[in-house]
Amino acid sequence: MKKRNRYSAQVYIDGVLAADRVILSQAITLVESALPSDQMLAEEVMSAILPRTGDSIRIGITGVPGVGKSTFIERFGQLVIEEGLKLAVLAIDPSSQSGKGSILGDKTRMEVLSMDKRAYIRPSPSGSTLGGVSARTREAMLLCEAAGFDVIFIETVGVGQSEIAVKGMVDFFLLLMLAGAGDELQGIKKGIIEMCDALIINKADGENKDAAKRAKREYANALHLFPSKENSWLPQVMTCSGLEGDGLESIWEMIQSYKNKMIANGYFEANRADQRVNWMHDHIGYLLESSFYQNEVIDKNIKTAMAEIKSGNVSAIKKARELVQVFMNQIQPN
Amino acid sequence: MKKRNRYSAQVYIDGVLAADRVILSQAITLVESALPSDQMLAEEVMSAILPRTGDSIRIGITGVPGVGKSTFIERFGQLVIEEGLKLAVLAIDPSSQSGKGSILGDKTRMEVLSMDKRAYIRPSPSGSTLGGVSARTREAMLLCEAAGFDVIFIETVGVGQSEIAVKGMVDFFLLLMLAGAGDELQGIKKGIIEMCDALIINKADGENKDAAKRAKREYANALHLFPSKENSWLPQVMTCSGLEGDGLESIWEMIQSYKNKMIANGYFEANRADQRVNWMHDHIGYLLESSFYQNEVIDKNIKTAMAEIKSGNVSAIKKARELVQVFMNQIQPN
Repeated sequence: MKKRNRYSAQVYIDGVLAADRVILSQAITLVESALPSDQMLAEEVMSAILPRTGDSIRIGITGVPGVGKSTFIERFGQLVIEEGLKLAVLAIDPSSQSGKGSILGDKTRMEVLSMDKRAYIRPSPSGSTLGGVSARTREAMLLCEAAGFDVIFIETVGVGQSEIAVKGMVDFFLLLMLAGAGDELQGIKKGIIEMCDALIINKADGENKDAAKRAKREYANALHLFPSKENSWLPQVMTCSGLEGDGLESIWEMIQSYKNKMIANGYFEANRADQRVNWMHDHIGYLLESSFYQNEVIDKNIKTAMAEIKSGNVSAIKKARELVQVFMNQIQPN
Repeated sequence: MKKRNRYSAQVYIDGVLAADRVILSQAITLVESALPSDQMLAEEVMSAILPRTGDSIRIGITGVPGVGKSTFIERFGQLVIEEGLKLAVLAIDPSSQSGKGSILGDKTRMEVLSMDKRAYIRPSPSGSTLGGVSARTREAMLLCEAAGFDVIFIETVGVGQSEIAVKGMVDFFLLLMLAGAGDELQGIKKGIIEMCDALIINKADGENKDAAKRAKREYANALHLFPSKENSWLPQVMTCSGLEGDGLESIWEMIQSYKNKMIANGYFEANRADQRVNWMHDHIGYLLESSFYQNEVIDKNIKTAMAEIKSGNVSAIKKARELVQVFMNQIQPN
């Protein structure tokens, strides 16, 4: 892999704060880098821009493939920028890990939005995670905030770990569904429903309209059975058509109303404070592993350990403990 | 939380090797425990039983909720035990994290299998992960092998991180799908298709039969477009009816054929060797974080750090680095 030239931290900081999109993109690439030198630089940039973050509303958007996320984001995003707001979308790159495109062929996604100067779309690296949330999505979000974006969409696909990760970094979590497809088949598990702040029945257009209305009633009834959330917000169920644009304004109004209520009752900031703490824990784990694998003695021993484990002569967990002990013994107080 | 009484390591080891199911269940509970003392005991047990593991075929079974996993496992499992084999199923507990049951009500799952003495069903703890794969599923699998089970099913739900985790511990990975539901809607992404060794169109019964056959052809054609795998296995597409039992024997034969071919070309053991190495890496991460959070000085400092981060006065990543540095300085060579 080619080592990229890097700017000084100040170039990234100034560029991001000046809303220079080229630098913003390069700064996101920097924080996504696994190189130790890049990581130190990234931390310096992040710490410097942090006081300029926090002034956006962070919205997570999830739903299984086929539910119409791209079309929804395309139209909903246009509504947001028509309100005079700057929008950043941390989107999923639909190409798979090996980069040969989806089994159904690549989709043209967010065509209008991607041409609009008021919007910034950053596809997440297709690499390490399937759900589209990378380990550095949080940092990318904060960089966008520092660059002055008022609204951040974080798109995620599928149902599972990536939603838990996104829930841990957004203010509002929106689940797109389809009427009539059956909630089981859409991977709607109670855990996900409990996480979301709004459940949107998409594709409520044409012949689907009545089914969408029925689904809305059913879900609204079902949601009443759930214990109320600590922030006393009852998740809303709404219908919309990402294709025709119906219902999008109501969704935007609901998000505004949520934000105002949560700021008033203190939950908005309390939730963000908890999210920052979780960020610290995530980063601790990351730093511990980095230090371990970059340790010279570990580096010298790990290949032998792997060979022994491959041969089946030694237990993987026993070897892990031995290596961690070697690492601990290596560290000298500085 | 009540602290449980523990046996000595030898009691667990002898009990598991003697196929005592009560002890086996308790040993799995032991490895799932987060208590440091339990973890030391668990490692001792795992290292002792490890030479007695490896003699099973490990089969991952995935598919979105509603695809019929429980029914499939119920019937496929019966076929396996009718072959004279002992079957362990590491299953998903359908109740959600907060333990109030699914939105559609709890299902009665694997009724026949759970009554059969030749099968052992262990629901995964509903706690920490949504996909049903816990951090200790691998250990549970090995304990079952040491207890003499010939076939292990690892059930997982949804599409994402949990499948990657399961792929990392099984020999054969089987994806259940439905005909006509649209592959997009079922969360079938190229990444998952690339992972699976067989794609099974379930519910190929009654009026669905023709659609299932068509879907089989389509997927088989699509799979030909994928680059061939390093083990030179072309993922098979088959239809079956978990409800009526049709097609299950062919699936079992295919898995046998896979196993024989992979043993012959060396992939079977090479894959398991790689999986053991990944296990070591996972455990290293776990041990590093455990050591960190159990460190006395960290324990004393972490609350202040969390308070500072909550107040927003300090960057989470900066504080993480500081704490990791404090930890490093604490460690004395022993």
